[in-house]
Parts: sequence; C-alpha cells; structure tokens
Amino acid sequence: MYSLHELQKCVADYMDNLDVDGSPHSLYQPIIYSLAAGGKRLRPMLTVLACNVFSDNALAALPAAAALEVFHTFTLLHDDVMDNAVVRRGKPSVYGKWGTNAALLSGDAMMIYSYKLLQQTPVDYLPAVLGCFNYTALAVCEGQQVDMEFERRNDVTMEEYMSMIDKKTAALLAGATMIGAIQGGADTLSRQHLFSFATELGIAFQLQDDLLDAYGTEEKLGKPIGGDILEGKKSFLMLTALTEADSVTRKQLQALLDNGAMESQQKIASVLEIYDRLGVRAIAEREIELHFSRAMEALDSLQVARERVEPLAELAQSLLGRKS
Amino acid sequence: MYSLHELQKCVADYMDNLDVDGSPHSLYQPIIYSLAAGGKRLRPMLTVLACNVFSDNALAALPAAAALEVFHTFTLLHDDVMDNAVVRRGKPSVYGKWGTNAALLSGDAMMIYSYKLLQQTPVDYLPAVLGCFNYTALAVCEGQQVDMEFERRNDVTMEEYMSMIDKKTAALLAGATMIGAIQGGADTLSRQHLFSFATELGIAFQLQDDLLDAYGTEEKLGKPIGGDILEGKKSFLMLTALTEADSVTRKQLQALLDNGAMESQQKIASVLEIYDRLGVRAIAEREIELHFSRAMEALDSLQVARERVEPLAELAQSLLGRKS
Repeated sequence: MYSLHELQKCVADYMDNLDVDGSPHSLYQPIIYSLAAGGKRLRPMLTVLACNVFSDNALAALPAAAALEVFHTFTLLHDDVMDNAVVRRGKPSVYGKWGTNAALLSGDAMMIYSYKLLQQTPVDYLPAVLGCFNYTALAVCEGQQVDMEFERRNDVTMEEYMSMIDKKTAALLAGATMIGAIQGGADTLSRQHLFSFATELGIAFQLQDDLLDAYGTEEKLGKPIGGDILEGKKSFLMLTALTEADSVTRKQLQALLDNGAMESQQKIASVLEIYDRLGVRAIAEREIELHFSRAMEALDSLQVARERVEPLAELAQSLLGRKS
Repeated sequence: MYSLHELQKCVADYMDNLDVDGSPHSLYQPIIYSLAAGGKRLRPMLTVLACNVFSDNALAALPAAAALEVFHTFTLLHDDVMDNAVVRRGKPSVYGKWGTNAALLSGDAMMIYSYKLLQQTPVDYLPAVLGCFNYTALAVCEGQQVDMEFERRNDVTMEEYMSMIDKKTAALLAGATMIGAIQGGADTLSRQHLFSFATELGIAFQLQDDLLDAYGTEEKLGKPIGGDILEGKKSFLMLTALTEADSVTRKQLQALLDNGAMESQQKIASVLEIYDRLGVRAIAEREIELHFSRAMEALDSLQVARERVEPLAELAQSLLGRKS
C-alpha cells in the first residue's frame, strides 16, 4: 500500500514521462503543451488511489490512470473551441494559441492516445476497463451537449442542472475511480460504494467550482472571476438565486442576464449583490457539505481496513479544502 | 466461408441495425444521420472479408468491422469542419446542417462509439485488435494534419504526397484488413501479405479519387467536379502536372493556382487543359494500375486455397472498376 504523497509523486512522474510525440510534430505539439499545463491530476489520482484500497500493486493502474487524465485534457481542448475560450489555466488555450483546426485534430489524436494508454491494461481487466472507460467518455459528451443547450434556455430546473453535472463532471471522476477499483480486484459491492463516493465527490467538486467562479480569486481560478455570470451560465448559484428570489428580484436578475450592453464588472457586481441578498453563497456551501459528507459515508461503508481508505479520503478532503 | 454478396448483406444489415441513439437525442442525431448516408461500407467489408479468408466465422468480426466504419464516418464529420465543407455525399454535411459545435461534439461521441463496438471483440483478440485500431487511428490523424499543411505549401514533392495518402487513406484500409485477419486467426506472414494488399489498394483507391475529382461525374463524386483544383489541393494530378511541365507551363499553372479572382469554371477548364496537354490522366491511370496489380500480387502470395481469397479479390476489383 502506498501513501497519498507517494502516489502523487508516481502519477506526476508518469505524466511527465509520457512519450506523446510523433510525426508530424505539429500534431503532437498541442498535446504536449496541454498535458504540461498540469493541474491537480485529480482523475489519475482517483484511479491509483482506488486501486490502492484493494491492491498493493496500485502502480499497475498507472497507464489507465494516465488515460483518464489525457482524456480529460482532450475534453478541455474541444470544450475551448465550443466555448470560444482562449485562456485555460491562466495560459493561452490550444484553441487560443493554434486555432480551431489544431484544437480539433490534436484533440482527436489525444483521445486516441488515451485509448493507446488504456491498451496497456492487463488483459484480464481490459474488457471491463475498456467498457467502463467508453461508458464514462460518452457520459461526458452527453453532459457537455446538455450544458451547451442550457445556454440557450431560460427554463433550466435545478434537477436538470444536477443531472447535467452528474454527467459532465461527476461521471469522469466516478469512471476514474471505478477503473482503479476494477484493477485492484474490488468486488461488486465495494465498486458500488466507490461509485457513490466518486459521484458525490464530483458533484461537490463542481458546485465548489461554481462557487469559486463567483467568490474565488482569479489566481485560484486561473481565469477572471465572474465568467459564468457573463456567459449567462445556469450555474448552481444562478439557479438557486432564481429559485429563492421573489418575482421582483427574479425580473431584475433576468434583466441583468439579458442586458448585453452592460459593462462586465458592473454586471458581475450587480448579480453578486443579488446573490448576497438571497444568501446564495451559504446555500451553495451547505449543498457542497451535503454531497461531501455523502461521499465520505460511502467510503466508510467499504469493508476494508481503515488505513487502506485513508489516502483516498485524504485526497477528497484536500480537494474540498477540508482538514482530515 | 461466405460469398462477397452474403457479407455485403450482413454488413449492411449490421450497420442499419446499430443502436446508436441515447440521451440527449440531439447529440446522437448527427451520428445517426451521417451513418445513414451510407457509402460503400468499404472498411467494414475489408474486415469481414479478411476474416473470411482464414475463418468460417467471419461474422464474429462484425462489431469490429462496424467500429471501423463508424470511425471513418467520424473522421468525415471533423474533416468537414476543418475543410469548411457543407456538402458530403451529395447531402448537407453534419457541419453544414448543424454547425461546428455539433460536428465537433457528435464527432467525439462517434469516435467513442467506435471503441464501444470494438469492446465486443472476443477477449483473446482484444489486445491485438485494440492496438491495431489505435495505431491506425493515429495514422489517420497524422495524415490529415500533413494534408492540411500541404494546402499552405507550394513545394510539396510527390514522395511527400504518397507518404501522406499512405497515412490519410491507405492506413485505415490496411487497419481494417488487419483487424479482420487478426480475428480470423491469420499467422504473421499472412497478415503481412494482407497489409501490403490493403495498403496498395488504398493508394490506388486514393489516386482514383484524385482522378475522379477532375475527370469523373458530379453524380459519381457526390459533389461538383474540380473541387481539388479550386481548393488548391496538391493532388496526384497537380503534382504530376508540376513535374511534367516545362518552366513556361509550370508558371502558367502556378499563376492559375494563385489567381483568386478567376471564375471557378474557367479555372477548372484551364487547369484541365494543361493536364490534357501533359498527359496527366494517362500517367495517373498507369500509377493506379501499378498499385492495383501490386495489391493483387500480395493477395496471390497468401498460402490459402484460392477460393478463400476470391471474395476479397472481387471487392478490390469492383472498387477500382475492374472485371474479375
């Protein structure tokens, strides 16, 4: 069994040493660039940590873990084209730097590369791992499609929103965790508990992301604050505000959203003022807490020695800024 | 062993009955639309026919065969975005009908769906089939990247062109054939012969496509004649013309290519007049014949009863308009 810190080092090393290059270099350069941008490596960490719960050979799950990170980074390349986003993690996005065609085609190559990593999975586990990966990957596309459609709709319900983030964000964390559990040899019941854990964690994580977009810092977010407000995103905060508001405030909010001429900083400040008035921040924080504790309960339900779960619990806590 | 006709029917049925739909329907609709557009089903036919050479259970290769067709169709969705092509096979392309984001995201889902089909491969063959598929898929992306870069270059050599179509077109035919051979239980030497067969066939097929673009009919091509000329494509015909031309004619040709103001039909007619003068058509026909006969020789080298090879040979002949 490995500690959280040991696995973090292994994942970072493995990602840093991926041999992604090929010919023509121009196809692979954006892949290398986007993978080097780093990030938390959350998905591969979930894979090796889930494997680590059941097996002393968690490093065997490293290729599949890397496949999940490469797949995740590929989705960012294509999302940035769809969202017309030229900045990512505080640097020019592939789309911003090289344009649509490069983001499109290098993104495609990147997705294939994730399957190339997956192909290193021990053959006994390969069918189950490949099946789980495909299921997860399709869910992510479905979530992205629904998210894009939300931007053109004014009647998105909270239930629809939760179902969307379940696919767009939580599914990939759940898939990453399941793929680790499969390779650790986990039984069906344990897999179910881990699935619940990762899904709830993913929802808490997405809600926290929504919260950060309004109440975080530009440094932590890697892009300017208030982007969701300016893009008219139906975030958890916005949907909560629309639910909590009386009819006058709801009209105010709607008018703000529809006002294309208003100066950006003023629009953000006006929306935040309404959020504050309605106590949206506290509601979001309670919701995050709810999903986070459900995640931890699912972990507690695992029938394994507590110490085996500890590194995974530690990651979940640090992800949401909790102390263990 | 099945006849060509029997396998054509099985592939058509299998493709027609793929259960592609899901939620949201808007994500899957472009996939269903583009798969229904049909086409020759060349790639899946190569898979089942290659399997059929070695095994009496060629239908076991149907899911992988379909995976290759779905992958091929996915590349068309993304190519049409990159080439800004609103028509495909005589109908609006997905990009033309639904726009960039739909072509992008439904294309992604389509690629994942091809892996979902691949996942049905019997586990004994899965690692080899997945490996071959990934290798092939990356080659196709590499070929597309090089092809796009050619459009911005005026110094493309024939050697570079042949290497590009080897990746962009021939690799997928070779991959499709290899995946069938693997599932048929072919030995290494037989696989090598089939690889040569499909690669040479793929090159002949692409050169014939180049020829059709200039000398075919709009009906057969599914789009207006002369598109390659208008887009400034460095096709086999254009590169041959540039090689064969004396310095005066070469300058004429280059001036035609650089002339953005010239009326389309006039430009096409002027370029064709130069092709005719230089005998480009006959050179292309000889080159097609050369690669086609190399393909047939590779088939003849297979150490199997002649009747087992016959259906595959028949497909190759019909593909290039040859009588058996």
